[in-house]
Amino acid sequence: MFILNTWYIAAWGSEIADKPLGRRICNEPIVFFRDQSTGKVAALEDKCCHRAAPLSMGVVVEAGLQCGYHGVVHDCSGRCVHIPGQEKIPARAKVRAYPVVEKNEFVWVWMGAPELADESRIVDYPYNDDHANWPHHKGFYHIKANYMLMVDNLMDLTHLGYVHGSTIGGNPQTHVQALMDVKKTDDSLSYVRWMLNSIPPPTYLAAVPFKGRVDRWQEFDFAPPSNVLQWSGAVDAGTGAREHGNRTGGFSLRIFHGLTPETESTCFYFYAPANGYRQDDPVATKELMEHISHAFLEDKLICEGQQQRIDELGEKGLIDIVSDVTRVQLRRIIQRMGDRERLQGEAAPAARPAVPEASAAAS
Amino acid sequence: MFILNTWYIAAWGSEIADKPLGRRICNEPIVFFRDQSTGKVAALEDKCCHRAAPLSMGVVVEAGLQCGYHGVVHDCSGRCVHIPGQEKIPARAKVRAYPVVEKNEFVWVWMGAPELADESRIVDYPYNDDHANWPHHKGFYHIKANYMLMVDNLMDLTHLGYVHGSTIGGNPQTHVQALMDVKKTDDSLSYVRWMLNSIPPPTYLAAVPFKGRVDRWQEFDFAPPSNVLQWSGAVDAGTGAREHGNRTGGFSLRIFHGLTPETESTCFYFYAPANGYRQDDPVATKELMEHISHAFLEDKLICEGQQQRIDELGEKGLIDIVSDVTRVQLRRIIQRMGDRERLQGEAAPAARPAVPEASAAAS
Amino acid sequence: MFILNTWYIAAWGSEIADKPLGRRICNEPIVFFRDQSTGKVAALEDKCCHRAAPLSMGVVVEAGLQCGYHGVVHDCSGRCVHIPGQEKIPARAKVRAYPVVEKNEFVWVWMGAPELADESRIVDYPYNDDHANWPHHKGFYHIKANYMLMVDNLMDLTHLGYVHGSTIGGNPQTHVQALMDVKKTDDSLSYVRWMLNSIPPPTYLAAVPFKGRVDRWQEFDFAPPSNVLQWSGAVDAGTGAREHGNRTGGFSLRIFHGLTPETESTCFYFYAPANGYRQDDPVATKELMEHISHAFLEDKLICEGQQQRIDELGEKGLIDIVSDVTRVQLRRIIQRMGDRERLQGEAAPAARPAVPEASAAAS
Repeated sequence: MFILNTWYIAAWGSEIADKPLGRRICNEPIVFFRDQSTGKVAALEDKCCHRAAPLSMGVVVEAGLQCGYHGVVHDCSGRCVHIPGQEKIPARAKVRAYPVVEKNEFVWVWMGAPELADESRIVDYPYNDDHANWPHHKGFYHIKANYMLMVDNLMDLTHLGYVHGSTIGGNPQTHVQALMDVKKTDDSLSYVRWMLNSIPPPTYLAAVPFKGRVDRWQEFDFAPPSNVLQWSGAVDAGTGAREHGNRTGGFSLRIFHGLTPETESTCFYFYAPANGYRQDDPVATKELMEHISHAFLEDKLICEGQQQRIDELGEKGLIDIVSDVTRVQLRRIIQRMGDRERLQGEAAPAARPAVPEASAAAS
Repeated sequence: MFILNTWYIAAWGSEIADKPLGRRICNEPIVFFRDQSTGKVAALEDKCCHRAAPLSMGVVVEAGLQCGYHGVVHDCSGRCVHIPGQEKIPARAKVRAYPVVEKNEFVWVWMGAPELADESRIVDYPYNDDHANWPHHKGFYHIKANYMLMVDNLMDLTHLGYVHGSTIGGNPQTHVQALMDVKKTDDSLSYVRWMLNSIPPPTYLAAVPFKGRVDRWQEFDFAPPSNVLQWSGAVDAGTGAREHGNRTGGFSLRIFHGLTPETESTCFYFYAPANGYRQDDPVATKELMEHISHAFLEDKLICEGQQQRIDELGEKGLIDIVSDVTRVQLRRIIQRMGDRERLQGEAAPAARPAVPEASAAAS
Repeated sequence: MFILNTWYIAAWGSEIADKPLGRRICNEPIVFFRDQSTGKVAALEDKCCHRAAPLSMGVVVEAGLQCGYHGVVHDCSGRCVHIPGQEKIPARAKVRAYPVVEKNEFVWVWMGAPELADESRIVDYPYNDDHANWPHHKGFYHIKANYMLMVDNLMDLTHLGYVHGSTIGGNPQTHVQALMDVKKTDDSLSYVRWMLNSIPPPTYLAAVPFKGRVDRWQEFDFAPPSNVLQWSGAVDAGTGAREHGNRTGGFSLRIFHGLTPETESTCFYFYAPANGYRQDDPVATKELMEHISHAFLEDKLICEGQQQRIDELGEKGLIDIVSDVTRVQLRRIIQRMGDRERLQGEAAPAARPAVPEASAAAS
C-alpha cells in the first residue's frame, strides 16, 4: 500500500537529457523524458498504447516520445499524436500522464489523482541550487528494502556508532548520550541532537583538522512521507555553538535524503551531500561524497538484511526501545497520511481514467 | 496454452551430434539424441523412468540413451531396454517419446498426439540444403517473450524503420508507404511488399554497391503456427523487377524464421539468413549474418520489453493501427488452430499413455 | 516437512571463529557465534528482537552477540542483555536459542524441542579427531536438492560406475556385481560391499601402486536421518581381506557424509575424506580431497538435475530397481522418524515459546 497523493523524487534532473528514462515508482512503470521544445520533463505510463512496448525503449522526437517499435508518438500529456501511415488517431489512443515538477535539481512526480497535485507542497531545498556555498554530489542507490526502513534509519541516529563507526559515526556511546530535542506536529517532525564536548568522528577529522573535542550537532527535518533534510556539523568544543548559535569555522554538512518507493520491498535513495566547510575545494567535496556513499552503503546493506527478515518472518514480536521514540512518531505520521488518503478514496488510480483531462471531466 | 498438434523446430541438426541435448518445448523438458546405428534423431521425455534424473545428463550408447546416474538405458521409442544388474524390465519402465523428423537442416518435433504426426505437413525449405546458391548461417536466440510476439514482429514490417534503422531497415517512411499485397486463406497468409524507387538500407548497401535508388521487395510466407519464410531483395530502380519479374543483379536475401515456444513467456528463435547475391564469397555470407543477428537482437530486446509489460499489465486497452492488419489476420489463424485443437480434444497429453504403441492400442 | 527432533551438522567448527555465521537450517535463519569467554558455540534465531536486522551482520562482544544496527546485545541463551541508552530490558526481549554441541570438529544443532535435545544421540566420529591416523580435509557443498536425494545417492553405490568413472568409481559392472551384505533394524541400516578380484578405480591407483587386481570393500553405516559413515579400501586380491580381516597395506579411506536440510529443495553437504594409507604425506591427503571433491561435485550436479525434475513433475510413475533395495529401506526409516515425530506432536516450533527456560516452564 503506497501513499500516492504526494510528490516523490523520480530522478536527478541530470539523469533525463536526450534519452528517455524508465523507472518504476509505487510499482508503476513510468517513462520520463525531456520535451524538446520546452525542456520540461514529462512522465508517462511506460507502455505504448499500440502494442505495449516500453516507451522507455523509444526516442524523443519533436512531437513527444516515439515508440521504438512501430513509431507511434505520444506527447507530454500522454495523448497519441502520430501513428505512422494513418491519419485518424482514435480518441482512446493515449497513456496515463503523471504531473511532474523539476525543482532544486530533482524531478518530482505526483503518483495520485492529478487534480490534487499541488506544486507548492514540494519541499524547498535551495541548497542544491547554491553551488557556491553548498557544492554537492548527486547520490543514488537502489535499495532492496521498503522505503520506510530507510526513513526509520534516519530517525534513530544511535545507529551511527554501530553502522558507521569508521566514517560519520564515531563512538557509539556519544550517540546514545546525545541531547535530543524533538519538535513534532500532526504531520511533521524535526529534531536537533547535540553531542557536546565529544570526539569528532573519522569523516569530520578527515575534513577539518580539529585539535581536540568538538560540540557536534545534527538537525533533521522530516518532510513526509519520505524526505529528510539534514544539517550536521561541529566546531571546537566550548565555543558556544549551542548557546550563541555560532557554527562557523568547523565542519558543516548538509544532506537531502529522498526515499522513493519502487515496489513494496525496494526503493530508490537520492541523496545530496553538500560540503559546507571547504566550498572552494572540489577535492573536499569529492572526499565527503566518498565518505557518505560508503556510510550509506552500510545503511543499504543493513536495511536490506532487515527487509529479508521482515519479508519472511514479519514484524510481530519486535520490541521498541528508548531510541525508537522519533521513529515511532514518524511512523504514526505516515500511517495517518495513508489512512487519510484511503478514507478520502482519493487514491484509486485503477478507477481513474487514464489522462488528466478525462479525469478532470469525471470529477 | 500451446498448439500441440504441430511441428516445431527443436534444434539445428548440427546441435545434436554425439551428446544428448536437453531443451524445453511447450514447457515439456525433452532430450534429443542421435541414434548410434541409424544416425536418426530421437526425442524423449527428459526424465529417467528410474529416479527422474535428466536423461540429457546421460550418454549415448549403442542401445539408446544411458542415464548418467545408475545406467538405465532407454531406446529411441522411450522403452527401457537395460537395467544394470537386473534381467527383468518392468513393462511400465518407459518414458514418453516424441515424433521427430530431420529435414532441411532442422530437427522438427511433434508435440501432440503421436498418431496424428504427419511428416508431410512440415514446411519445405530446400534453400537450407542448397549451399551453392543459398549459403547460410545457423542463427539461434533464446527470447524471453511468447513466440507469438516474435511472429507478430514479422507480420508488421513498418517496425523496420524504427527498430532496424542502422541495418536492414532504413528510412521509416519508406516502409510506411510500401505497397502491400496480402493473400490469405483460412489457415495461411502471405504478402509481398514493394518499396519502389527507394533508398537502399545500410545492410543492402554494405553488400551491393548500388549507385542510386532501388526497387525493393519483401515476400513473406507464414506457415502456421510459427514459421515464416522470407525473400527480400532489391535491384536498381526502374529496371522492371516488379513488372517483369527480373530480380537478379542486386541484393537478395532469404531467411527462414522458426519460432518455437519454450514456455508461455519464452521461446527459441531459429533463423537462417542466406546470401543470394555473392554466393561464392564466405565473407559476404558472414557479414550478412552479422547484420541480421544484430537486427534480430534488436527484435529480441523490444519483444522482451513488450512481454514484460504484457505479463504485468495485460493487453487490455491496446489499440490496433492500420499496419496491424496482417498481424491481426495471423493471430486469427493461430486462434482458429488452437480452438480447433481444443474442440477436437486431440491435445490432451496428460491423458495419453506415455509411449506411442500403448497410445495406439488405446485408440 | 523436516524432521526436527534430531541433530544436524550446522558447520565445521573452524567456520565459527571471531565472526558470527548466518546459516539457514530446516528453513529457519540461524546465527552461530562463539562465546568470547567460554569458547562455546551458540545458535540463535538470526533476527534481532529490536528491529529484525540479521544478527549475523553484527559483532561478537563480551556479553554475547551485538546487533550491527543499534547495538542491542543478546547472550548465548537468546536473552537480550543490553540495550544502548536504556537500563530496563523488557522480559520479552529475546530470541530463540537452539541447543548446540561441538563434537568431532562438527557443530551440531538441535532443531526441535530443546527439552528433548540429548547430546548422547549425536553420532560418534572419533576419526575427525585422530589427525595422526586419519588426516582429513573439511569438505562442504551447497546442494540445490533435498537432502534425501543425497542420502539416496549414498545408498545405491551402483551409481559409482556411471557418475564417477574417472575417480572413485571405475568399471560399472564391478559395482553391479558387488557382493552386498545389508544389516538393518527399525531405525538403522548398514551394509558392506565386496568387489573381489576387481580392477582398482583411478583414485585408488593414484594413491597406491597396486600391481594388479584388488579385493575392494565399502562399509556404510547410516545414522538417521542424514549422516553416513563410510570406510572404503582395497588390498591386493587374494590376500584374505574378506575372510581373515587383514585390510592393511593397501588403500583405505574414511568419509563422514553429513547432509543438512537448508530448505525443502536445498541442503548442505559436509564431508570429511580421511587418508588411511599415507598418513604422513600431506600431498596424498590433498590429492585424495581433490578426487573426492571432484566426485562429489558430480553427485551434486546429478542430484540437482533430479531435484529439478521432481520439483516440476513429481515422483509418480518412477520405478524401483534391484539396486534400490537399501535406498528404499532407508527411506522407510526416515519416513518412520517423521511419522513418529508428527504423532507425538513434539515438533511444533511455532507453538513453542522462544527461549529454552520459558519452554521448560511451560512443559
